[in-house]
Amino acid sequence: RSLSTTARKSLTVGLIPADGIGREVIPAARDAILAVQNELPPVSFVDLLAGWDTFTRTGTALPAETVKTLKQECDCALFGSVSSPSRKVAGYSSPIVALRKELDLYANIRPVRSVSADSSKPPTTDLIVVRENTECLYVKDEKLTTGEHGKEARAIRLITERASTRIGRIAFELAKARPRKLLTIIHKSNVLSVTDGLFRESVRAVPPASNGAFDEVTIEEQLVDSAVYRLFREPQIYDVMVAPNLYGDIISDAAAALVGSLGVIPSINAGDNFVMGEPVHGSAPDIAGKGIANPIASIRSAALMLRHLGYASPADKIDKAVNDTLAPGKVLTADLGGTSSTQEVTGHVMKLIQA
Amino acid sequence: RSLSTTARKSLTVGLIPADGIGREVIPAARDAILAVQNELPPVSFVDLLAGWDTFTRTGTALPAETVKTLKQECDCALFGSVSSPSRKVAGYSSPIVALRKELDLYANIRPVRSVSADSSKPPTTDLIVVRENTECLYVKDEKLTTGEHGKEARAIRLITERASTRIGRIAFELAKARPRKLLTIIHKSNVLSVTDGLFRESVRAVPPASNGAFDEVTIEEQLVDSAVYRLFREPQIYDVMVAPNLYGDIISDAAAALVGSLGVIPSINAGDNFVMGEPVHGSAPDIAGKGIANPIASIRSAALMLRHLGYASPADKIDKAVNDTLAPGKVLTADLGGTSSTQEVTGHVMKLIQA
Ligand SMILES: CC(C)[C@H](C(=O)O)[C@@H](O)C(=O)O
Ligand SMILES: CC(C)[C@H](C(=O)O)[C@@H](O)C(=O)O
Repeated sequence: RSLSTTARKSLTVGLIPADGIGREVIPAARDAILAVQNELPPVSFVDLLAGWDTFTRTGTALPAETVKTLKQECDCALFGSVSSPSRKVAGYSSPIVALRKELDLYANIRPVRSVSADSSKPPTTDLIVVRENTECLYVKDEKLTTGEHGKEARAIRLITERASTRIGRIAFELAKARPRKLLTIIHKSNVLSVTDGLFRESVRAVPPASNGAFDEVTIEEQLVDSAVYRLFREPQIYDVMVAPNLYGDIISDAAAALVGSLGVIPSINAGDNFVMGEPVHGSAPDIAGKGIANPIASIRSAALMLRHLGYASPADKIDKAVNDTLAPGKVLTADLGGTSSTQEVTGHVMKLIQA
Repeated sequence: RSLSTTARKSLTVGLIPADGIGREVIPAARDAILAVQNELPPVSFVDLLAGWDTFTRTGTALPAETVKTLKQECDCALFGSVSSPSRKVAGYSSPIVALRKELDLYANIRPVRSVSADSSKPPTTDLIVVRENTECLYVKDEKLTTGEHGKEARAIRLITERASTRIGRIAFELAKARPRKLLTIIHKSNVLSVTDGLFRESVRAVPPASNGAFDEVTIEEQLVDSAVYRLFREPQIYDVMVAPNLYGDIISDAAAALVGSLGVIPSINAGDNFVMGEPVHGSAPDIAGKGIANPIASIRSAALMLRHLGYASPADKIDKAVNDTLAPGKVLTADLGGTSSTQEVTGHVMKLIQA
């Protein structure tokens, strides 16, 4: 299996809607892929289980069967969203965190772009959060002990040169392909001089592209607290932001707030051999099952996934149809101030793709 | 030494301007205290050293003399801001983080409130971030090793029942004194079930006040990533937010962005026996020495410190003068869109206090 299109005779997509609105928006993403299938090798879909609901029924949040099928039969996947228990439940562990690790999907790429009705004006927010996806506090190496003054819990925050270098390389590649070619490294090395120090140094030390192209990239740095502050005050200062896992999680939600709704922010979890699209929003139990969830984040995640697989033209078609749906501001779900249903928005995007 | 006013025959305030604009704004805070001294026991000030500049001249960022004087001679202190080197410098370590630990100032209290010109309308943002101030990743227990694939760095994130309970108690006390009596616990227990699990459970388990008053407090919870998102979208849903150290650092900067400028956000670092005021902003090397830094955050920090020491009336006077300066929007520093200097703003506030 390879990420180069030439080697691919067919395209098998794993579908893991998981919980809540994931079940309503992943079908929309599948429809978007079907709508551009004439530009793809023969596409097939495999439905796979994961999530809290799966846990309550089967005792595991990520069945071995799901991982096996993804590894052996799929070229890529689309993941919906998971509901998590608010208290620790024995045996339960977040399936999305586990999948990222199992499939070594080390780069979480989250483009955040405002949609302005006037397409001649540049968007006010246009950035990509590149989040390291396998380590930091997400290694989930935690211990509980009892000390003199009660319980004590410790978690390990792991930052390695290898993971920081490979996420740095992805960030440089994305930055050099953009007009501004600006890369901002997010860290907190004024407190975490060793771990975040290693992160920033490893990113800075990414070897130049063979054609020297990284030389053109301007590197800046920002402490995570002031990065969030400045993101709200002057989002236009950012182009590509690269961050360790937890800061990336927070920064991408912060950036999403700038463009109107988490419901429009796509992501991919990308590794060297696999890519998984995932809307940035959660399972939204409060609106699940009502048919009003915004399908845009998932549809865009499908486009981002196709682009990463090498299919730029069908990805462009999906993205254009999405932008042409959002810009007039007529067919919108409630999170964007509209009254359209998930189906109406999806239908509108499909119509524009096929137009 | 006690935080009850009755025991106090005099008030000795340590002044630690540290670096950058800290040196311009701490004098303004001192002036504010002097302006209300007729309502205080005899006040004296002690100038103390700390910071990057101190490090480059003396080899230590926090001289033992400073800590000793604070402990033995001062009732409280005002800290400015520190510049940090962007690379790890042998022997350098953040003096503010060290002071919080040395003096066991376990609660970092950061009220964030919008100033609206129309004082009859409620402010859109009116919340308090209560940040645990001694542990989490700020224990700075980091190690660097070399593994098969290069360097590996690990940091310990420590969360104890004791520290979570005592910060929880402060948060409950603050919440119960406010009209809405709402407390939101910020965590990421969907990933950090052990450490953040302990934090949320310890806060929830804070024993009720002797008069049962905590019963009136409504408890909510929010994952840190969505808390930042919602902070930008619907800040009015928050009243008091309590968070482990690092989330609190990020959340308070995020909240600051909502009200116009970090330059107006005060804080105190409070322990059972000492309190230290500190503007939330940094040392701002880009504008340092120009006389244009906003003194409001420091002046408000002085008021917050006095209030915590039991001097509500002089604190009210300072706060009112600050609000009456900000609301008309005429005497403002550049960060708020004005053209006034640090001295002009300070002078205006002093005039209103004495009016
Ligand atoms: C559900 C949760 C474990 C996840 C994360 O923290 O990575 C989510 O917030 C995300 O951003 O994908
Ligand atoms: C200067 C830095 C160590 C500090 C912190 O992270 O606590 C600052 O950001 C703050 O919020 O007071």
